[in-house]
Amino acid sequence: MADKAASRAKFEDVFAAIREELLQHFAGEGMPAEAVEWYRKNLDYNVPGGKLNRGISVVDTVEILKGSALTEDEYFKAAVLGWCIELLQAFFLVSDDIMDSSITRRSQPCWYRLPEIGMIAVNDSFMLEAAIYQLLKTHFRSEKFYVDLLELFHETTYQTEMGQLVDLITAPEDHVDLNKFSLDRHRTIVIYKTAYYSFYLPVACALYMLNVPESYTTSGVTQKPYEISKSILLPLGEYFQIQDDFLDYSAPPEQLGKIGTDIIDNKCSWVINTALLLCSKPSTPGGAEMRKVLDENYGRKDAQCEARVKKVYERLNITKVYGEYEERVVGELKAKIGGIVETEGGLKREVFESFLGKIYKRSK
Amino acid sequence: MADKAASRAKFEDVFAAIREELLQHFAGEGMPAEAVEWYRKNLDYNVPGGKLNRGISVVDTVEILKGSALTEDEYFKAAVLGWCIELLQAFFLVSDDIMDSSITRRSQPCWYRLPEIGMIAVNDSFMLEAAIYQLLKTHFRSEKFYVDLLELFHETTYQTEMGQLVDLITAPEDHVDLNKFSLDRHRTIVIYKTAYYSFYLPVACALYMLNVPESYTTSGVTQKPYEISKSILLPLGEYFQIQDDFLDYSAPPEQLGKIGTDIIDNKCSWVINTALLLCSKPSTPGGAEMRKVLDENYGRKDAQCEARVKKVYERLNITKVYGEYEERVVGELKAKIGGIVETEGGLKREVFESFLGKIYKRSK
Repeated sequence: MADKAASRAKFEDVFAAIREELLQHFAGEGMPAEAVEWYRKNLDYNVPGGKLNRGISVVDTVEILKGSALTEDEYFKAAVLGWCIELLQAFFLVSDDIMDSSITRRSQPCWYRLPEIGMIAVNDSFMLEAAIYQLLKTHFRSEKFYVDLLELFHETTYQTEMGQLVDLITAPEDHVDLNKFSLDRHRTIVIYKTAYYSFYLPVACALYMLNVPESYTTSGVTQKPYEISKSILLPLGEYFQIQDDFLDYSAPPEQLGKIGTDIIDNKCSWVINTALLLCSKPSTPGGAEMRKVLDENYGRKDAQCEARVKKVYERLNITKVYGEYEERVVGELKAKIGGIVETEGGLKREVFESFLGKIYKRSK
Repeated sequence: MADKAASRAKFEDVFAAIREELLQHFAGEGMPAEAVEWYRKNLDYNVPGGKLNRGISVVDTVEILKGSALTEDEYFKAAVLGWCIELLQAFFLVSDDIMDSSITRRSQPCWYRLPEIGMIAVNDSFMLEAAIYQLLKTHFRSEKFYVDLLELFHETTYQTEMGQLVDLITAPEDHVDLNKFSLDRHRTIVIYKTAYYSFYLPVACALYMLNVPESYTTSGVTQKPYEISKSILLPLGEYFQIQDDFLDYSAPPEQLGKIGTDIIDNKCSWVINTALLLCSKPSTPGGAEMRKVLDENYGRKDAQCEARVKKVYERLNITKVYGEYEERVVGELKAKIGGIVETEGGLKREVFESFLGKIYKRSK
């Protein structure tokens, strides 16, 4: 745990350097002092305050793949890539909060809610995205994998935006229509909106940084490390989000650190989609009647409605269904990880075991 | 004029192909039909309805530089780059309208004002930006200049966002402070917010497409075509915007096609900045008193206030000052253009003469 705090602190130190680099370039373009201060506040308020799991996982993955301690330069480069992912996330969070009319984020008011900011937050979110390519150019322009990195960030950004669109039109906060929901729709949203940028992106960044090729042949077996990583990390990301959805319903607030609001907010959560599927099965006694309860009470800003939905979840024993899902998916993931043929300079199982270990049976 | 309409129609035809390509890729990612339709509406509503000057100028520039008719493939590639600029502009306009609380755009309601769209427009604007890189990847990935194009779009996007930030904090619609204004500030805003993407970007795209190198030596003279283009097109873009600002004040609405609102909207226009400079000169009789009138009446939602500001503009003879500015800048631009040493496979004066010809003495 002290280890974890130290590695976080080291990673955070790199942010100060990155911020100054961005501000220096910005000021060097002749921008007025007032704008430089604005950009500084934007970066400080929105980028470094989260859990930093995504960014730090680039560094962790590079360390595992290299198999020995990183040089100072390697650490810095991996951390820059990590901060690029944190910038991407900040771009999404600042704009998501506007789209969702959110009030707080990371225990402070959302950026756009600050009276002096308002809708300028839209442009501020753009600048966080643009900073990614400024950093990649400065630090990776001469590398063979520079174009791969650019395309990776472009593609991941687009995928996340696709997922956000599907989420927004499937589950608008103010219009409940459970006919739009399904586990299939949930999977599309989760894979695109979360899994690509939170799980595949950090590992792909690490693979590129270590010049791991698109494919290689070991003892007669051809492996595609990026494809293999995707085939493990997308279901892993889906599992992570399903767990998140389940904890929102099941974990006591004092354990979760917040009060779950997915039912009230009409979220297209794994829990409601599983409940809908169970209700539609002829083998479920009272399915049609429970479906009616869900239709009439889901997404309503009302504690009694929420309680009725929760009662249906209990009757359907969602907790048991979740437990079965978790054991099955973890088994599948372990099998896939076990199938990796490890080689010098290629993938290592530990990369994925490390991700899985942080997620399996977490309680918050 | 028939020529112009035909070249516009031909350029517009390419949009249909580009849109279908984007939608096919999107659907191929497994997105639900409802989301595909949404994206189609986003593209159709926001991308093709403008004047298309920026996009068409890529095709025009490629034609001039090549010096002979384009092959079908060359035309298509130039048009794809043109549409990438139109996508970039659509990204900016959709989001600018949100930031400015605008009501209409291109004689229809702003996208975010449609009741079924609302704040989803923020994500829709992101997808317009992401489409650029999807198109560049599909059509230019194997070209030597692919990375140059990516960096060009990144840098131009960032520059435009910088200009937008400076504009937003200099001239918020609801808080007038003329002390923040200056011709210097105006230049920063105009060059960054408009000139880079509207003038330099199309020409730089054309130069890359024709594999024009960063520098070449002709009869002992080393020329840097991208730098030369920038040194002409940024002042040209500034001139274009200054003209726009001046027409907003001076042109009769029936000629302009709209009613000028820069005074009422607290815009950081060339006209107010020139007026402020003149008021501050000891040689201007009544300067301090006129400055007071400007401070008390600029940016107010009131026709009488607007009339008082206009009266100061008349007293200061802004029309004469504008005429002198125009003659001076056009002379400077012509001298710079005349200094270009033309060579096979390099820059041509006609590229810039063509831009200048479209702008000089325009009346709307």
